[in-house]
Amino acid sequence: MTTDTEMYALSIITENRAGVLRDVATVMADYRANIQMIQQSIIATGPNAGKAYLYFEFEECGNRPPELVADLARVPSVADVTIYPPFSRIFGSRVIIIGGGAQVAQVAMGAVNEADRHNIRGERISVDTIPLVGEQNLALAVDAVARLPRASILVLAGSLMGGEVSRAVDRVKAAGIPVIALKMAGSVPAHADLIVTDPIQAGGVFAVMHVSGKAVFDINRVRGGREF
Amino acid sequence: MTTDTEMYALSIITENRAGVLRDVATVMADYRANIQMIQQSIIATGPNAGKAYLYFEFEECGNRPPELVADLARVPSVADVTIYPPFSRIFGSRVIIIGGGAQVAQVAMGAVNEADRHNIRGERISVDTIPLVGEQNLALAVDAVARLPRASILVLAGSLMGGEVSRAVDRVKAAGIPVIALKMAGSVPAHADLIVTDPIQAGGVFAVMHVSGKAVFDINRVRGGREF
Repeated sequence: MTTDTEMYALSIITENRAGVLRDVATVMADYRANIQMIQQSIIATGPNAGKAYLYFEFEECGNRPPELVADLARVPSVADVTIYPPFSRIFGSRVIIIGGGAQVAQVAMGAVNEADRHNIRGERISVDTIPLVGEQNLALAVDAVARLPRASILVLAGSLMGGEVSRAVDRVKAAGIPVIALKMAGSVPAHADLIVTDPIQAGGVFAVMHVSGKAVFDINRVRGGREF
Repeated sequence: MTTDTEMYALSIITENRAGVLRDVATVMADYRANIQMIQQSIIATGPNAGKAYLYFEFEECGNRPPELVADLARVPSVADVTIYPPFSRIFGSRVIIIGGGAQVAQVAMGAVNEADRHNIRGERISVDTIPLVGEQNLALAVDAVARLPRASILVLAGSLMGGEVSRAVDRVKAAGIPVIALKMAGSVPAHADLIVTDPIQAGGVFAVMHVSGKAVFDINRVRGGREF
């Protein structure tokens, strides 16, 4: 984030008509605002039931959000525009933990306790987990981590992983996301950046320390299958 | 999800020029495709470095994704279009756990172990956590849960919460997300749908059982501050 651009988040409530997203995108293009994410849904309950809800986050230089908000409010059918802090400021960087349930839970315990110490000091680190079994399910989820917003590191917690999962590990590393694997059977550890035996110290603490902007640990200094 | 519409996910790699999102949204509008989410970023590394990466999920009826993909590929500057399963099929419904580190970790342990049992049977449930302290930080995060995609239930794990946090609990419940609170000091438990003492059984198991489409537990049957 340079000093020229700032991240913003807005929600818009509009009539549910075709082309609303296109009209909003046109306003954003006029401001050369860099949209990073848009979510759109139909409101199910309450006074705005049936209306469309758009939530989006964007980078904008020039410090013109008030004018942009005014122009958005002028788009036909727009009923409400609200500003929020972006998710990066609320939930921050994400440590993703995937694997067998009991081991994912142990890694999560380490990660959550370490993230607590960092978040108390003003950082923002989340710990997001999914327990999964099966080579295809795991490979699909590992690949999808590269598409998750704000995912910063992946920890694989299991006792036996290889095959398609190892290929997915290579792809997610190529996408810029480091991978820590618990020491386990199978080929996955050989593909990981770091192999760690103790789920608490290892996956949890090492992962969070890498993600933290303020810690001195950098996973890139211990590459090559270093084992702990 | 009705039998008429289906959820799809696509990624597009294009030249990084202004207006790409608008052009893509125009094609989607032509197909009356209901876009639910778009993510956009600049590719940092690799052969496509400097190009724009769009990932989006949409509902489309009429079973015309192949034609839609072909039309997207014809948008000027589009270099690649790839189809994926949507996040709902990979990461599924999300149990969100927020509060003090040690207690969030305990609730997560219960939730992850219960979610494991459900995911083994083909469901998809994730457990996403962030340890936070401070009334303003907690209220901000609780409110943001209503904006998180696929967030299905919120568990507040702490020893003392009230004030702005209780008001945020009311708002997130009004948005359709049930709230479970550990038994704790402060006014938050009085605003929660369920108050539970044991973090493992309670927050974890109750939360996941409610989210699961296949369990018989329904939090709406025990409303009114029922305590466990």
